[in-house]
Amino acid sequence: MKNNGVLIVLSAPSGCGKGTILSTVLEQNDNLFYSISATTRAPREGEEDGKHYHFVSKDEFMQLIDRDEVLEYTTYCDNYYGTPRKAVEEQLAKGRDVILEIEVDGAMQIKNSYPNAVFVFILPPSIAELKRRLGKRGTESEEVIEGRLKEAVNEIAMAYKYDYIIVNDELEKAINTLNCVIGGEKQTVSRMINKIDEVLDNA
Amino acid sequence: MKNNGVLIVLSAPSGCGKGTILSTVLEQNDNLFYSISATTRAPREGEEDGKHYHFVSKDEFMQLIDRDEVLEYTTYCDNYYGTPRKAVEEQLAKGRDVILEIEVDGAMQIKNSYPNAVFVFILPPSIAELKRRLGKRGTESEEVIEGRLKEAVNEIAMAYKYDYIIVNDELEKAINTLNCVIGGEKQTVSRMINKIDEVLDNA
Repeated sequence: MKNNGVLIVLSAPSGCGKGTILSTVLEQNDNLFYSISATTRAPREGEEDGKHYHFVSKDEFMQLIDRDEVLEYTTYCDNYYGTPRKAVEEQLAKGRDVILEIEVDGAMQIKNSYPNAVFVFILPPSIAELKRRLGKRGTESEEVIEGRLKEAVNEIAMAYKYDYIIVNDELEKAINTLNCVIGGEKQTVSRMINKIDEVLDNA
Repeated sequence: MKNNGVLIVLSAPSGCGKGTILSTVLEQNDNLFYSISATTRAPREGEEDGKHYHFVSKDEFMQLIDRDEVLEYTTYCDNYYGTPRKAVEEQLAKGRDVILEIEVDGAMQIKNSYPNAVFVFILPPSIAELKRRLGKRGTESEEVIEGRLKEAVNEIAMAYKYDYIIVNDELEKAINTLNCVIGGEKQTVSRMINKIDEVLDNA
């Protein structure tokens, strides 16, 4: 029996710095594979198929669902978003760790099918600080920001169902903590049984 | 409600580098408190009371047991060894993490009374390598080394009951991994509930 990689599910409200944390952790970990979501929405400017998303038609997405080829999916603004199963399972079987960046509903779907996955929630230091960060972008109206904050509160209420909580008060610290969480998880006894067996078998 | 520290229980067969790993991790973590064992054995040359051990009489040790003032205890070569409860609980209540370095039987006693403690086992890369390391010291007879190896195999057979397994193949890596395990554990949701509550209560 060989060791599979670890499946990490990362969620965070908008404005929590998830993108920066994720891209840095990916740069620092050669063994970590980022799972690209499939979506039926149209590509935005600068977005590449197979890099930012797998852009598919609605018919294609329906087929993915019918064939049980998505680990989870959700709809948002009439578009479908989901995690293709094949790439994730192939990488895990190779012993690579896989990270999914998905919202809370999708994460809970994964929890049902992959109880061994590791669920990580990135928390803002406070809602006041999140409001400040969202406002700083200067691109959204007060109304949009208030909507985002309400959504954030709903998402944070689901954080209790995650395995690990990382507060993004300092970016570098949050990055190190996520690295530690992944590193620590790889040492859990359920993932190290083969190594104990190996030492005892050769005693 | 405030957050208590994490209780870490560290075990390893003799020759696995536990002492070096532990002293380095203690130097690197100001918040980590090393719990000093009590023992009825006589101090060896260079050992200081209250630094290496709390040296107590057999009567005093019996009183500690009677008053439920040890978290665990064991006997070895007619001497008692145990973990005084008071210092551990005081430090945990202050939010400091506490590390105990104890053998497998004592660790299992702690597991019954402190199910939230974190159990870490340091594994040698192989028994052959452990034999090489024990032989390298050049101070023990072949017979003593064989006895140690048998004991190591018995201890490693208990590693399945620990939470985390760290292989000491490279010292620096093992030290970093132990730091990560402690760091990661502090982010587990059960230890972060207060922070989620705090963010939501102030929303």
